[in-house]
Amino acid sequence: MKNAVGREIPEEILKATGKEVFHGVHYYDGYEYQKDGPKTRCVVNSDGSKLVKTIHEALVKCEIRDGMTIGFHHHFRDGDLVVNMVMEEIHKMGIKNITICASSLGKAHAGLVPYMEDGTITGIQSSGVRGEIGKAISEGKLKGLAVMRSHGGRVRAIETGEVHLDIAFIGAPTCDDYGNCRGIGGKADCGVLSYAMVDADYADRVVAITDCLVPFPNFPTHISMTKVDYVVVVDAIGDPKKIATGAAKPTKDMRKLMMADYCTRFVTSTPYFKDGFSYQTGVGGASIASTISLAKIMKERGIRMRFGVGGLTKPMCDLLDNNQVDVLLDTQDFDLDAVESVKDIRHFRISAGEYADPFNKGAVVNKLDFVILAALEVDVNFNCNVVVGSDGVITGAQGGHPDTAAGAKCTIVLTPLLQGRIPAICTEVTTVTTPGESVDVVITEYGVAVNPLRKDLLEAVKNSGLPLKTIEELRDLAYRIAGEPEKVEFGERIVGIIESRDGTIMDVVRQIKPFQFKEEKKVLPESVHK
Amino acid sequence: MKNAVGREIPEEILKATGKEVFHGVHYYDGYEYQKDGPKTRCVVNSDGSKLVKTIHEALVKCEIRDGMTIGFHHHFRDGDLVVNMVMEEIHKMGIKNITICASSLGKAHAGLVPYMEDGTITGIQSSGVRGEIGKAISEGKLKGLAVMRSHGGRVRAIETGEVHLDIAFIGAPTCDDYGNCRGIGGKADCGVLSYAMVDADYADRVVAITDCLVPFPNFPTHISMTKVDYVVVVDAIGDPKKIATGAAKPTKDMRKLMMADYCTRFVTSTPYFKDGFSYQTGVGGASIASTISLAKIMKERGIRMRFGVGGLTKPMCDLLDNNQVDVLLDTQDFDLDAVESVKDIRHFRISAGEYADPFNKGAVVNKLDFVILAALEVDVNFNCNVVVGSDGVITGAQGGHPDTAAGAKCTIVLTPLLQGRIPAICTEVTTVTTPGESVDVVITEYGVAVNPLRKDLLEAVKNSGLPLKTIEELRDLAYRIAGEPEKVEFGERIVGIIESRDGTIMDVVRQIKPFQFKEEKKVLPESVHK
Repeated sequence: MKNAVGREIPEEILKATGKEVFHGVHYYDGYEYQKDGPKTRCVVNSDGSKLVKTIHEALVKCEIRDGMTIGFHHHFRDGDLVVNMVMEEIHKMGIKNITICASSLGKAHAGLVPYMEDGTITGIQSSGVRGEIGKAISEGKLKGLAVMRSHGGRVRAIETGEVHLDIAFIGAPTCDDYGNCRGIGGKADCGVLSYAMVDADYADRVVAITDCLVPFPNFPTHISMTKVDYVVVVDAIGDPKKIATGAAKPTKDMRKLMMADYCTRFVTSTPYFKDGFSYQTGVGGASIASTISLAKIMKERGIRMRFGVGGLTKPMCDLLDNNQVDVLLDTQDFDLDAVESVKDIRHFRISAGEYADPFNKGAVVNKLDFVILAALEVDVNFNCNVVVGSDGVITGAQGGHPDTAAGAKCTIVLTPLLQGRIPAICTEVTTVTTPGESVDVVITEYGVAVNPLRKDLLEAVKNSGLPLKTIEELRDLAYRIAGEPEKVEFGERIVGIIESRDGTIMDVVRQIKPFQFKEEKKVLPESVHK
Repeated sequence: MKNAVGREIPEEILKATGKEVFHGVHYYDGYEYQKDGPKTRCVVNSDGSKLVKTIHEALVKCEIRDGMTIGFHHHFRDGDLVVNMVMEEIHKMGIKNITICASSLGKAHAGLVPYMEDGTITGIQSSGVRGEIGKAISEGKLKGLAVMRSHGGRVRAIETGEVHLDIAFIGAPTCDDYGNCRGIGGKADCGVLSYAMVDADYADRVVAITDCLVPFPNFPTHISMTKVDYVVVVDAIGDPKKIATGAAKPTKDMRKLMMADYCTRFVTSTPYFKDGFSYQTGVGGASIASTISLAKIMKERGIRMRFGVGGLTKPMCDLLDNNQVDVLLDTQDFDLDAVESVKDIRHFRISAGEYADPFNKGAVVNKLDFVILAALEVDVNFNCNVVVGSDGVITGAQGGHPDTAAGAKCTIVLTPLLQGRIPAICTEVTTVTTPGESVDVVITEYGVAVNPLRKDLLEAVKNSGLPLKTIEELRDLAYRIAGEPEKVEFGERIVGIIESRDGTIMDVVRQIKPFQFKEEKKVLPESVHK
């Protein structure tokens, strides 16, 4: 059955998942459902400690068994030690058929591939699956379907009960013996625990893992003791060097600087750019450069930002230091400056639900004026792909991309015309992750394309001097330079789904074909898209 | 059927409520249940405002109808305007058969009595029902059963789904147009919104009422927009003069000063009084005097408190100002000093659930060393009564009394030997609200009785010089002075239940008999208790 972005979703997948096809970004507005609730074990006694000696003991007390679903967060990013540590113990215990439901997985988790191969892990649900795990899924090594969700979509899936977490493990930079967790302090300081909050709310059993036990009460708590069953102290939960990087150096890449310049000019030409506006941006070089140049114009024009939101980096925190923004709302800290900035009293932590969940009574993304995003591919319908590489291998993460795009009044996607030698603007993206109806503007170093649905924005920028193009013109230009890309050839088996933030199916991901020499493919074939 | 405190709970009540009799304080330790979830209406659009013009409009949008249960909080205490305002509108709309589930009701709500009489309100669930409402319930004016719950018990009732809130109204001192509520600021500054947090988590529809609309985002939010459906702005939600009083003047009442002295000497004689101890106390003159004298001894002995908790008053906040306590955990602010102190970064808000809920994974009360409480009556089994006056009329509130008593390692009840001319220490309390197994020490101006279950405490204080007595000795002394009190004569009809914090039935409250001259009663009868 074809969905609202024109993707064919096979009946077998609809049947297997019990899901609908994607109907459009606002299809579920006003939808009513009953929230799930965890099975909770009451602690009425006054013994006063939840410490257990080992992860093994915690697993036993949580009654680990085959087929369970385990929650993890990704605030330690490439420095995460928790997922591997827990899965190693589960593997040792001979438990099979585990589904990992993580807010994201990445390079740190290559060690899980053997557990996929031996049936310890048969399900993976995550925002993204970068690195070896993505490759393994694309190669068909996971028995079950991988589910790729946005940050908001993960909260939705858990609170609707579509996914029920049997046990959640929460790596806590500091924790007391009764389970009050904070994202700040300790050896693995990650600043915030936003993505783990929904796990604490909805998992039947919650285990806090820390390498820095502090006296009770560890306040202000980010995750309350009222939701934590057990506390385990280990030597290390994260590698500090890989949790948050030093601030990115301002880019010198001319293409990125051009995109940043176009972006800033676009933003400042719209009616949303006025005192009290709100803003989110990413971690790419162009995004960062654009934030820096935007700050200058804000100063010149005496315009102040009301709030900045999202995964944060130094340039956003600089706005706070320079008193150009009232407050920051933080879900993740990408660099050490952001981790440090969390201590500012105007820099607030929010949960992933508050940030981006489409199934609560209104998330922060709904209040966004601007979001600046990147993409691996954008097609002529403004659909974006941020998960599957042009080679067909899962390599990225939905993150908050579809959430912020849906919420923001002006969604701007920055992408170079070519990613390496492959056109980033194309006729049809390999996989749709963010629907074109949410994407208002695409900015490349060769020109700026406004979504024709946004006549108001086109009108606003028509005299800006920006190199306005149609998205087809950008695509044609890309194809002229690099040639029309050959369509990736997938196998038949569907290895994963791209879930829309509302739980419907945006697209499917198929197994990649084993590599083979194809002499005849050296000549570009006729496009299959015409 | 007799319960664990020897009270006869009629079968009809067990049948009507579906409840069990009270089995003991730790009966539900380790009990597992599935938490309830609210019916949630998703807001996926970016319109960005939840403002509605009137309470009437909010009620219509919430689809108010006969038989609904409505949640309210009591942070505006005697200055509350919200409950009356909402109920007046519901009454005007001709809606019948409403159950009010409030964290407490008091003097401010006398205006609800006519609505009880005309069938608008047929159910009341509350910690306490002071003033006219208590009298009206005792007179049998409420059609249904009144349910008196502790603060922790209310959270339990809501999260187990025993009570499902159809609509919750949250008076918010400040709020933005998207529903982010804070207890601080505005015209009705009450400091915290602890009791309302469970309403926001579990009610199907949540309406924030404010008299101080502030720009989005109102952070750090005490109740998140993700839980709020509508926002109404009214002229006033509370009368500031009656929300928090000025700090109580230190008492000059000799009886109270004696009790305070005994209390401090008791506390400081126990092994729990050591560096890092935790402490909660009440708002009575003796409690306050005791906190002040305790602070002196802490200074002398170089002992520091780790945390203080509860409804807070000036003497507790003074400990923070004087750097004698690390942190305060706040559920309610009784005086203006406490409201002001909330702005201190070591003074933290906690939810009623974090404070006292027996059905989560561990509340702060479980970590208490000392709690200092008051009581209307204490009997020779150490059972306390804090709800029903010795005249049989409902006049008090459970509050956190049974919660803290159950949790604290040392629970001390201060009461004068006589309340007015009526013995406060008696053979059998009029109504049991806190079971004797949770009460360790009773302190009167005539002597100190330690619960025989606590041999360790008896041993600890045997050489303290305190006037140690048995509880029977104190009772006998009271009876010698004031005469053995005549047992209140109740009618047959049961008008309310005293719910234990775990949801079982601690006691029932019967309708009072209409007043009649009883010439023969001028002579004291033989006690019925022998």
